[in-house]
Amino acid sequence: MTAFHKHLKSNAKGELEFEGIAVTDLAMQYGSPLFVLSENTIRENYRRIHRAFADVYPAEVIVCAGMKGNWGLAARRVIVDEGGGGDAFGLGELTVAMLAGSDPRKIVMNGANKSRETIEAAIDMGVLNQVDNADELALVGEVAAAMGKTARISLRIRLPLKSLAEVNYVDARYPEGISPSYWERTFKFGLAPDAYLAAVRIAQGMAGVSLEGCHYHGGIPRRAGFYREETEELVEILGEVKAATGWSPEYLNIGGGFVSERYGAEAPPPVEEYGRVIGRAIVDTCAKHGMKVPALMLEPGRYCWESAGIWVAQVNAKKADPTLANKTWVYVDGNTNEMRDPFDPRCSVHHVVIANDVDREGSEVVDVCGGTCNAGDILAKARELPPMQIGDTLAFLDMGAYNESFACQSNVIPRSATVMVSNGRSTVVRRRETVADVLSREAVPTWLMAR
Amino acid sequence: MTAFHKHLKSNAKGELEFEGIAVTDLAMQYGSPLFVLSENTIRENYRRIHRAFADVYPAEVIVCAGMKGNWGLAARRVIVDEGGGGDAFGLGELTVAMLAGSDPRKIVMNGANKSRETIEAAIDMGVLNQVDNADELALVGEVAAAMGKTARISLRIRLPLKSLAEVNYVDARYPEGISPSYWERTFKFGLAPDAYLAAVRIAQGMAGVSLEGCHYHGGIPRRAGFYREETEELVEILGEVKAATGWSPEYLNIGGGFVSERYGAEAPPPVEEYGRVIGRAIVDTCAKHGMKVPALMLEPGRYCWESAGIWVAQVNAKKADPTLANKTWVYVDGNTNEMRDPFDPRCSVHHVVIANDVDREGSEVVDVCGGTCNAGDILAKARELPPMQIGDTLAFLDMGAYNESFACQSNVIPRSATVMVSNGRSTVVRRRETVADVLSREAVPTWLMAR
Repeated sequence: MTAFHKHLKSNAKGELEFEGIAVTDLAMQYGSPLFVLSENTIRENYRRIHRAFADVYPAEVIVCAGMKGNWGLAARRVIVDEGGGGDAFGLGELTVAMLAGSDPRKIVMNGANKSRETIEAAIDMGVLNQVDNADELALVGEVAAAMGKTARISLRIRLPLKSLAEVNYVDARYPEGISPSYWERTFKFGLAPDAYLAAVRIAQGMAGVSLEGCHYHGGIPRRAGFYREETEELVEILGEVKAATGWSPEYLNIGGGFVSERYGAEAPPPVEEYGRVIGRAIVDTCAKHGMKVPALMLEPGRYCWESAGIWVAQVNAKKADPTLANKTWVYVDGNTNEMRDPFDPRCSVHHVVIANDVDREGSEVVDVCGGTCNAGDILAKARELPPMQIGDTLAFLDMGAYNESFACQSNVIPRSATVMVSNGRSTVVRRRETVADVLSREAVPTWLMAR
Repeated sequence: MTAFHKHLKSNAKGELEFEGIAVTDLAMQYGSPLFVLSENTIRENYRRIHRAFADVYPAEVIVCAGMKGNWGLAARRVIVDEGGGGDAFGLGELTVAMLAGSDPRKIVMNGANKSRETIEAAIDMGVLNQVDNADELALVGEVAAAMGKTARISLRIRLPLKSLAEVNYVDARYPEGISPSYWERTFKFGLAPDAYLAAVRIAQGMAGVSLEGCHYHGGIPRRAGFYREETEELVEILGEVKAATGWSPEYLNIGGGFVSERYGAEAPPPVEEYGRVIGRAIVDTCAKHGMKVPALMLEPGRYCWESAGIWVAQVNAKKADPTLANKTWVYVDGNTNEMRDPFDPRCSVHHVVIANDVDREGSEVVDVCGGTCNAGDILAKARELPPMQIGDTLAFLDMGAYNESFACQSNVIPRSATVMVSNGRSTVVRRRETVADVLSREAVPTWLMAR
């Protein structure tokens, strides 16, 4: 038996099973290409990261599973059932969160550029509006006043990351290296510390605004292992803000970036290490400044979703060219319209398994290609894989994050269905798209109709 | 007056007009973000490239305007009205082509990986099926036999580009350089010359298959100015095929790649130069081999669409950080979900015009950002632009190709509407998407509903 993780392994016939169901049976029943999401893998990923922090942290820990990584309604329902929260960008993700039955207290509303309509919705629902800048703070106050309601808010901060100024971080996405300090202090979200302090003072004086949280989402630094330094710097600044204003947050949201092992070349720390180090840094730095330890919010996306999803495609054709190209191409019925994770530097380096014959022997180097017009429509490039045949069912692993959410319809190609599997059961949670769906918004000017 | 091209210029009030309609009026009437397509710019782009070849070429010239660049039904209707054809990838684009009233003789069906269903459709419609490989040829024969119909086919060839073996081509997309010869001979489409010859022989002997064309689509070389060399090599090989088999094509399809000026750092040749050089190379090489000059098919995509489309967004917010980042951000109501042209090395370097005040004086360096979660959601990065204010209407020029067709819905953000303008009239040709549209395929497993 070959086991990829607890719920994904080969059976006695050498077929890949996900939660006890043969992937070839899923492809037969639901067609291909097909996303398959494992309910219990989502649950376990959620529980592990929640426990990693909750076991060591003396106040409440709220895991706001990132909606951007997977905004499926069924996936969200699983998180809600686990008692988890979510981070929503815009009205669409907020809609999914609330349709799935989320506790509004565990939902945060993100964005540097929220519309009035989105702010109204956040106030209506009582979710925490993570305000990006001073103009948005003014707008939130104005909208709350107009509605005669109170807006629960958090302010988003950007950090200088002074202690990391000299570091040059390198990974597959930044092959020439980048300074995490430069990256964090210049990106589009949040308030610099001086502007943050000013915004706290303004918010304290605003009727209709309840200032409850601080939001900081680090990107590169956490991935690169700077989570202790950034957490200490964050809470140090909050200590200064408390000294200046008397205010300290009830909720401290440290964002996401708890990456999975397949993400980069180097293995990230286990999530328990993040929990231990970050938890300790918050507790110690709060103590130093005489601050109450706040409830901790996290926004893990990839961590929750990635390993819970596979994507299944069938081999349609195979072409070898031993003369001019010296290459072999394997063509499948899916394509890179659905493999466009913009945050993964190894986006098309997913592990490929022959689902109908997991342990097939032998190997050949192939390009696994999709059916679009794009010469770059290659799902696995120059990869050494067992020899594949027409009719084989391929499973691409770790496809649960960002691939569906960033999928497009180039060449008017309808997108995959998604099935959820759970303890031997399966059901469609996103129906297969049709050409009629893709074309459903088209119209022709009347003046061109009769020509 | 500032004129960007014939139909896009400022009016007496300093507002940007597209085909005589103020862009601010379009944003007011139809909302934003908004794509705006100019019917007459499409017509003129089509006519210019058609004439560039037809004026110098002694046989029929069929311009198969690339559907992948813009698959809108209204845009297609304009091409049909001009007497143009199209290249379709898959059933979806074929559907658009035929719904728009195309002449099937001018439609080609592309793809390395066509489903049986797609092949059946191409046979039903009588369009030219551009067969990629020997297995597909066998499949086409089998499908045609089962249907009792004749399949019109073309065979796609890949070229060695021997005379370009030593060239190292560099542009913004290939900053380290690439060999056009390596690129062409190893990419996923088509048959190497020896396999091509073998396939011609097989096709000649197949009942139910009418071998009518040869298809070659060059990517990098044409862009880099190797169109004479590749055309000569292509027709030389066809001469050898004729000598060996007696067959020569009725239709010679040389693909697309006739790029616009904004595409790369260096200005490409005018399209008339392509026409003159390529036309001459075909005629001369055919004469050398005693071949009849075939009808010429072209598949220009970007050339037809790019300059015909602008994208309009409103400034929602502005944030300056003179202390930590030393930057200014301008936030608009659109985002890079709709600026994801995968073929343009300068994808987010579109010219930005303040549509309500085209000639505004002064300048500042800003990042123009969208509203998604992605730190890379920057529509114009570190660009020197006139000082912008909340409420300004921005037009991003040259957005008519590949941006709509590759658009995604990340963060559950509905996509723009598209309006067509024509001689002072305007109408919606793609209605604005809603959150309900984006979520229309979602479902929750029954076992999770009652928890």
